[in-house]
Amino acid sequence: MLGFDPGTATTGFGVVEGKGNRLTHIAHGVITTPAHAPFASRLHAIHIEAGLLITRYQPDAIAVEKLFFSRNVTTGISVAQSRGVLALAAEQAGLRIGEFSPLEVKNAVVGYGKATKQQVQDMVKILLNLDARPRPDDAADALAIAICLVQAGKVLRALED
Amino acid sequence: MLGFDPGTATTGFGVVEGKGNRLTHIAHGVITTPAHAPFASRLHAIHIEAGLLITRYQPDAIAVEKLFFSRNVTTGISVAQSRGVLALAAEQAGLRIGEFSPLEVKNAVVGYGKATKQQVQDMVKILLNLDARPRPDDAADALAIAICLVQAGKVLRALED
Repeated sequence: MLGFDPGTATTGFGVVEGKGNRLTHIAHGVITTPAHAPFASRLHAIHIEAGLLITRYQPDAIAVEKLFFSRNVTTGISVAQSRGVLALAAEQAGLRIGEFSPLEVKNAVVGYGKATKQQVQDMVKILLNLDARPRPDDAADALAIAICLVQAGKVLRALED
Repeated sequence: MLGFDPGTATTGFGVVEGKGNRLTHIAHGVITTPAHAPFASRLHAIHIEAGLLITRYQPDAIAVEKLFFSRNVTTGISVAQSRGVLALAAEQAGLRIGEFSPLEVKNAVVGYGKATKQQVQDMVKILLNLDARPRPDDAADALAIAICLVQAGKVLRALED
């Protein structure tokens, strides 16, 4: 499963495999784009990098956060545009796309919807058996979303049984 | 020049040619996507249709409105996502992308930044020598943005002379 934390400057990604009750960390990192490039060329770079990640890790599905835009409106526009080209890359590869709210991600990872960012990162570290909290924050958030997607997939399969 | 008025359900497009002081209407219309399809498949459809329009009309550049999100936040997210895949299609075709504020569009088309939507549509009709106001609204808005792009190109060329 491939999780994304979209942004124009920095898009976090996290790859997690789920087999039975076991979660395995595969990779995490960030896609960065040059600060002074036009927005369309930055979106182009994000789209290409997302396609490369999908080719390299062959996920069954991708996950992104649901957007609400309660905070910064200008950031919101650029996050939504990046999210658009990430979803496009997944759709072009024929992948399913999961959308989760911050509450759902916290519940899936920590079991508590009001968990702090640090608590989420600590649980990501424990669940994926990492030596330290994943860095940077955008990659850690992307891993958390990927974990949420794995857990959601389990629930769906359990309901289907 | 190809103007877009992006949205997930309906994306208006307008194609206008500018030679000297003459504007010529080439085409206008809308890209629509099925209401109950997942957002990623709707973005995929918009991206494909935009690519087809670029192939068919071979514009020198595309234009979209600058986003501010003063009004409806939820619509804003879906507009920004659509705008993202339209800009991507243009970038993939190697086209320049112009961004104009509603004020700039009104100034370019009507010569008056506080013009109403109806005044803009009337001027689009007159400037492009159409029999009636272009329909639907999204296509009319897209034509207005395309006209703005033509006029902006003239100003740039004049400055370069």
